Amino acid sequence: MSSQFSEQDHYFMQTALDLAEKGRFTTTPNPSVGCVLVKNGQIVGRGFHFKAGELHAEVMALREAGENARGATAYVTLEPCSHYGRTPPCAKGLIAAGVTKVIAAMQDPNPAVAGNGLKMLAEAGVESAVGLLQEKAESLNQGFLKRMRCGLPFVRLKMAMSLDGKTAMENGESQWITGEAARRDVQGERAKASAILSTAQTVLADDPLLTVRWTQLPASVQQNYPLENLRRPIRIILDRRQLVRPEHKLFQESSEVWLVGDRERDLSAFPAFCRAICVQTEAGKTYLQSMMAELAKRQINSIWVEAGKNLAGALIEEGLADELILYIAPKLLGDKARGLCDLPHLTRLADAPLWKFHRFCQIDTDIKMIYHPLKHNQ
Amino acid sequence: MSSQFSEQDHYFMQTALDLAEKGRFTTTPNPSVGCVLVKNGQIVGRGFHFKAGELHAEVMALREAGENARGATAYVTLEPCSHYGRTPPCAKGLIAAGVTKVIAAMQDPNPAVAGNGLKMLAEAGVESAVGLLQEKAESLNQGFLKRMRCGLPFVRLKMAMSLDGKTAMENGESQWITGEAARRDVQGERAKASAILSTAQTVLADDPLLTVRWTQLPASVQQNYPLENLRRPIRIILDRRQLVRPEHKLFQESSEVWLVGDRERDLSAFPAFCRAICVQTEAGKTYLQSMMAELAKRQINSIWVEAGKNLAGALIEEGLADELILYIAPKLLGDKARGLCDLPHLTRLADAPLWKFHRFCQIDTDIKMIYHPLKHNQ
Repeated sequence: MSSQFSEQDHYFMQTALDLAEKGRFTTTPNPSVGCVLVKNGQIVGRGFHFKAGELHAEVMALREAGENARGATAYVTLEPCSHYGRTPPCAKGLIAAGVTKVIAAMQDPNPAVAGNGLKMLAEAGVESAVGLLQEKAESLNQGFLKRMRCGLPFVRLKMAMSLDGKTAMENGESQWITGEAARRDVQGERAKASAILSTAQTVLADDPLLTVRWTQLPASVQQNYPLENLRRPIRIILDRRQLVRPEHKLFQESSEVWLVGDRERDLSAFPAFCRAICVQTEAGKTYLQSMMAELAKRQINSIWVEAGKNLAGALIEEGLADELILYIAPKLLGDKARGLCDLPHLTRLADAPLWKFHRFCQIDTDIKMIYHPLKHNQ
Repeated sequence: MSSQFSEQDHYFMQTALDLAEKGRFTTTPNPSVGCVLVKNGQIVGRGFHFKAGELHAEVMALREAGENARGATAYVTLEPCSHYGRTPPCAKGLIAAGVTKVIAAMQDPNPAVAGNGLKMLAEAGVESAVGLLQEKAESLNQGFLKRMRCGLPFVRLKMAMSLDGKTAMENGESQWITGEAARRDVQGERAKASAILSTAQTVLADDPLLTVRWTQLPASVQQNYPLENLRRPIRIILDRRQLVRPEHKLFQESSEVWLVGDRERDLSAFPAFCRAICVQTEAGKTYLQSMMAELAKRQINSIWVEAGKNLAGALIEEGLADELILYIAPKLLGDKARGLCDLPHLTRLADAPLWKFHRFCQIDTDIKMIYHPLKHNQ
């Protein structure tokens, strides 16, 4: 696919991808997008989307380029939009500025765009090409793309465990299995997610904050993500039995908390940033599948799950986990300790959910491994 | 330490280490040793030890060098021996051949040598130096060195598990958690060990052969280890309750089996290659510690352990495991499945045995991770 592209094309698209990264923590529910305008081999405009409601990448790049945009080539990490949303369509802006060629890393699967941006350009006589560094562009927006394509959020299941797959001692003691550096890494992962999902069970057991604590972010993240830009992921608590109480630590930080259940709920004792999300089990779906579809409808692109073995097991059994992120501490806790995931329906080895190894890194004395599903056990 | 050595010295010692590797599968209970004789910058003799009772590396290199040994420098991966064993002392051989300098990667901790080889050289006016590429030389003979230094074998504990630390389904089904390539790798690891240790419990449950099957060795091992050289590691079965019977598959291959227990045992129904090893618990030691000391006395350098969670846990709790080798399959088996190790005495997270990450590699779809103890939980 990319043989039609020159080495220079690759370089400029990589620059656009690097720019897109700058919105990595803040654009949700929008995708992260970067744009570079190039004229006579020189970059004349750079742009990236930072936050919903603010400038799109193309507009920002066009502003920098000014008159230089005329006759330039635009490198964008996602097909320019064609619809009037919070801002006018970027395809129109590129045409009006006199850009003569557009190279997009990938088509936008958003049904409101889905090729229409490219069509709009073609109709105005602007040359276009798609597919340069597409894989990198895909990985930049896993959440947005999953939501657009499947009507579901991209679900990342975090598990911190010992070498023997244990998450806590028999008595529940779990602070801390992994080391400080791994816990900082978790803060960085939380910061990227649209929402953090946990359960009432975990809230009752551990009373966590489930916030992003800027001071605890890895230094590499802090550098690119100053405190004043901090976006607080929505904290979603699965609480069908209505066990979470206003006294829980969750409510000590005033960022959104969504309590998910299947009945109406009186929240008068809770702070105003706490909302009840009522989800019913849809026909042909499990409760969790219905909940995920509802969260996608509410524009949740990506979910970072920190929960116990029941929710972990259910997400895995129901094919809802798109990524496993294992933090493995160099400890052994023994057989009595608490396990990683409950898979009550699994009885034969041949039916065990299969995963594909994706990435490995060492974080101080701990290991981080990432796996993707090979097939869903649905 | 190695600043006294030139780049050329490093090159020749590495050549000697590569030669030593050729005995990697066969020298037990002796160490693997390589030797290179260099004169005027040219290698004039190469040698390695292949098997107990056969030529020492130095003698083989001296034979190749012939008269060229006079005035040469010898690079040996272990201090030349000074004692009359199955062969005369190599230090004497080097002196007699007129070698003028000896560089050894490390001193031999064997109490029968322990510096005496170097002393013998010095007394004859042969210059010597020690410590070049010592770390590599150490890792070549972990087993021999542990036995010489501590009177214990080097124990490598193999565990094949799912991502969630499970080794079998609830009903015991465990064939196969890991893939074929990982199982071939296990064959290669077995082949390196002096002995393979398992338990009567495992024999009764799985009826394993516990042999090295040459056809199943990784191709890289087969290449350097032809079938005709195959050494069969001793199969040691911990069987205090005398449960192993002559019908077990263990006895289908005529290579040594040692049944370890604490009482006399009638082996008249067993094949001749089966021996009973009677071990009593020594004062101040556990039974396993006493057994390991006895196995070291019987010249077992290194042990590859394939057993269930009880022996694994006990070896870990008693500080006897020198290395964990984890083969991790990309599967999840869930909480009901069988665990990795039983640590009955562990109740506080702070007391969990700590390990240090050593090595990671991908074997087809599986992962192999190696850990060393950070501190023993003794």
